Amino acid sequence: MKTLELDLGERSYPIHIGAGLLARADLLTPHISGQRVAIVSNETVAPLYMQMCLTTLQAYAPLPIVLPDGEQYKTLEVLETVVTALLSEGLDRQTTLFALGGGVIGDITGFTAACYQRGVPFIQLPTTLLAQVDSSVGGKTGVNHRLGKNMIGAFYQPRCVIIDTDTLKTLPDRELSAGLAEVIKYGALQDHAFFAWLEDSIDKLLSRDTQALTFAIQRSCEIKAAIVSADEREAGIRALLNLGHTFAHAIEAGLGYGTWLHGEAVSAGIILAADLSHRLGWLPGTDVKRIETLLSRAQLPVRAPAAIEPERLLELMSVDKKVQGGRLRLVLLKGIGRALLTDEFDPALLTETLNQCRAQP
Amino acid sequence: MKTLELDLGERSYPIHIGAGLLARADLLTPHISGQRVAIVSNETVAPLYMQMCLTTLQAYAPLPIVLPDGEQYKTLEVLETVVTALLSEGLDRQTTLFALGGGVIGDITGFTAACYQRGVPFIQLPTTLLAQVDSSVGGKTGVNHRLGKNMIGAFYQPRCVIIDTDTLKTLPDRELSAGLAEVIKYGALQDHAFFAWLEDSIDKLLSRDTQALTFAIQRSCEIKAAIVSADEREAGIRALLNLGHTFAHAIEAGLGYGTWLHGEAVSAGIILAADLSHRLGWLPGTDVKRIETLLSRAQLPVRAPAAIEPERLLELMSVDKKVQGGRLRLVLLKGIGRALLTDEFDPALLTETLNQCRAQP
Repeated sequence: MKTLELDLGERSYPIHIGAGLLARADLLTPHISGQRVAIVSNETVAPLYMQMCLTTLQAYAPLPIVLPDGEQYKTLEVLETVVTALLSEGLDRQTTLFALGGGVIGDITGFTAACYQRGVPFIQLPTTLLAQVDSSVGGKTGVNHRLGKNMIGAFYQPRCVIIDTDTLKTLPDRELSAGLAEVIKYGALQDHAFFAWLEDSIDKLLSRDTQALTFAIQRSCEIKAAIVSADEREAGIRALLNLGHTFAHAIEAGLGYGTWLHGEAVSAGIILAADLSHRLGWLPGTDVKRIETLLSRAQLPVRAPAAIEPERLLELMSVDKKVQGGRLRLVLLKGIGRALLTDEFDPALLTETLNQCRAQP
Repeated sequence: MKTLELDLGERSYPIHIGAGLLARADLLTPHISGQRVAIVSNETVAPLYMQMCLTTLQAYAPLPIVLPDGEQYKTLEVLETVVTALLSEGLDRQTTLFALGGGVIGDITGFTAACYQRGVPFIQLPTTLLAQVDSSVGGKTGVNHRLGKNMIGAFYQPRCVIIDTDTLKTLPDRELSAGLAEVIKYGALQDHAFFAWLEDSIDKLLSRDTQALTFAIQRSCEIKAAIVSADEREAGIRALLNLGHTFAHAIEAGLGYGTWLHGEAVSAGIILAADLSHRLGWLPGTDVKRIETLLSRAQLPVRAPAAIEPERLLELMSVDKKVQGGRLRLVLLKGIGRALLTDEFDPALLTETLNQCRAQP
């Protein structure tokens, strides 16, 4: 087992990575203060891992809460059903919530923990690659609004993150690829050596080589933990983690949440960011090609969906949380491993990108 | 104008109290960082004071958002409509929200600010006595769930609180009395001299004597600010501010939100707490009588409503946020001005109180 630390002063927490960790009560109990816990999961993950977690946590009379599966259920309405379950069971302000699942479960459970009785502790048990390398770490929680992704939420840190790499054995191929989009993102935005390692290792990763996956998770979490500890509330550098995400959120909202997986939209978003960076003269065509090739090999989309008109995509991008004073700000690239946040780009070039990098209708 | 400071380190903020303050742009602008603001109010208050606030804040192209009036609208659904209004107008993460109204508006606007795009600044402009002396100060925000009051929310502090005492001129008598319930609460829980002053001054307060009201607001805010700065997240002493509130929240949920005003339920709740304290041998009968007389003179209910069975009231009390490990904890009195939080009471005596202090069916 590897353990990283996310350093946030008195709110610091460990990230444990290894095989078989969901059975390790000794890793969980030090972070539980009350007498009861609840485990929030979804209809896909619960049949696979809920029983194991109920056993591990049996000393705390765990309440299982099973939600429907999909990004389209990351809403205030579903959050309210979780609260109903907690209140109906009489679970008090000392209850610890566990998020057992992917990014949707982590985000909605974390936000529920942030606001249930004005805040209860929570612990992340991510079971998808995407959640393990990205969404479970760093305390961004929230739900979607039909006008924009993650528009209602909180910065609220978990007490710990337990990444059981065994859960990847049951992950569908499409979800594995979606997680790789975020892994590739870390290389593209700040670690050229890691990007090169990914180019060498992509086939191993796709064939679920345990050692390769564990290293990819560990390196991703290291990069994320360092950035989050430097800028928890995204006043500056943390925004770089959103490479591709302004495009991605617009794609997800435009197609309807749950049509593309988040990681698939991120893949197309990285391509759009790279293409615009190239049009601005910042990123060599060879680097754009390397990024596209790697994402393609990971079985990910490298074009925006045909179903959304470029004008509509631009409109959806304008509600992004990074918009400031009416100006759209984007994370762009000055090289593989060198991202920056900027509003200094010609809107006409952005329009070209949106038109050129769209799949054939 | 009087100014108090709520001391919370770098999140400290001023509380300004005086006449005509809603017109004072100079008090507001130092706390606004972005280019736009939104003013959230309700159908009752907006016709009276929205125009004045729009004028005061005209440099920030203020967006008015008007909600229906009443505790029954303090819900996640209504919060979502506020978010829809903000997103539709393209208001970004630098937007400052203003809460113009009573406790419901303050609570729902504050919680919206806490979670809109994971947190934007907000400012309290309380227009009811209850909001001025209690709910606008201290950062408790949230919405109700049908199973319990304020069950979904956040500790989220405003940037400042502006108490314009002129707004009390338009306050209905019933709302004035409801605010006095919280004022009397402060005397009962921790300031015997203030309680005695209230006994002397209740007629002046009811006849809206400006000087008396201003002093009552100031002293209430002083008491609350001192307690909140010592215990922001209610790990200890802050719970004492909930004198009467466990009973009150159960009454409000039981009758249906909005049937009784919150302050009316608090009045009955203080009586129930005093009666139980007396049965426990902690509070002399003469003190119970003084409290009941003062609340009665303030035109407030001094019995639990006949419409709720005592058994049902007890059941509703069991979801209170102060419940810990299945045990109900209550704020009780060992004298006027001496409150304590305890779970050491005979449940049979609580049942007696609930039966004896109920209005005749």
